Amino acid sequence: MSVAFIIYDEMTTLDFIGAYDALTRLKTMGFQPDFTWDVCALTERVVDGTGLTILPTRVGGSLAAYDMVVVPGGAGARRLVDDPTFTGWLKTVGPRTRMVSVCSGALLLGAAGFLDGRRATTHRNSFDDLRRFCGEVRDERIVDEGQVVTARGVTSSIDLGLYLVEQIAGPEVREKIQRQMDYQPA
Amino acid sequence: MSVAFIIYDEMTTLDFIGAYDALTRLKTMGFQPDFTWDVCALTERVVDGTGLTILPTRVGGSLAAYDMVVVPGGAGARRLVDDPTFTGWLKTVGPRTRMVSVCSGALLLGAAGFLDGRRATTHRNSFDDLRRFCGEVRDERIVDEGQVVTARGVTSSIDLGLYLVEQIAGPEVREKIQRQMDYQPA
Repeated sequence: MSVAFIIYDEMTTLDFIGAYDALTRLKTMGFQPDFTWDVCALTERVVDGTGLTILPTRVGGSLAAYDMVVVPGGAGARRLVDDPTFTGWLKTVGPRTRMVSVCSGALLLGAAGFLDGRRATTHRNSFDDLRRFCGEVRDERIVDEGQVVTARGVTSSIDLGLYLVEQIAGPEVREKIQRQMDYQPA
Repeated sequence: MSVAFIIYDEMTTLDFIGAYDALTRLKTMGFQPDFTWDVCALTERVVDGTGLTILPTRVGGSLAAYDMVVVPGGAGARRLVDDPTFTGWLKTVGPRTRMVSVCSGALLLGAAGFLDGRRATTHRNSFDDLRRFCGEVRDERIVDEGQVVTARGVTSSIDLGLYLVEQIAGPEVREKIQRQMDYQPA
């Protein structure tokens, strides 16, 4: 199982880190020794919406080899929906790669065509923007369409990460990771 | 209001980013135009417990000018409790600087002497380790001793950030930031 966590300028880092923390615990807590990931960007460094600088582990290149690609949201997403270099990069995924977004990251999946005819969610402030890219906008914390999974606002990234952990490794592993993260959702 | 967010090798990034996301929204959402912060480390770059690289905005130097210093936890904290350079750096804060920790970051506040005789919390796995550094370990999500505030495990960082937002800017601002973060705690 290999995951690409996409990062880009003016993203919301918590969108990225919520799911990242939960999923990478599959490896760091010893549940899935063969779980691997890259933090992928098109630039050598990424500056998030607050000015925080994060370095990717991989710059550019095809995304075809990943089982899953996770795309966060943020102010930068509104710029990148009109950037064919970025959306073209997302399209380099393989036919079986599962596409996952958090918050306004759904707009990027939509702009790259992954939401055509599908149900999806995004930050509530972006519901109107998402409509042109998908079949139906849903006001749910996680919308799972199989090949594509979208999560709603910022902190739903944590719920998404734990949801994917459960699909990958089962409810007992999810429970252990959730406890280690001291997470108490509503 | 100025905040130093401390980062260090082998930290847990979600410990840092949960509170960071909530607090920096005081500025990015326009509630407190004079809210400022630095991301502070003793090294030019920081590699967290998963291998993720984050760059500080400030390296070394006194922490005396900050109103608040926020210290995350992580595997690295267990090493740094015995590192007098690091604990000495924390001691450069001013007499009125509010010290704040998430997760095993409390061990660092403790090793630097900030928890002497005080009640505090930390990740449940670190309760035994924290006892030698504080007056009383509490199994609560946030323990506020006025000059020192400690939060329990990883995701309690988000609750902590919102708790501090409310103290700084009031319940209405907290509510708006929490809604923007789409946060639904238990």
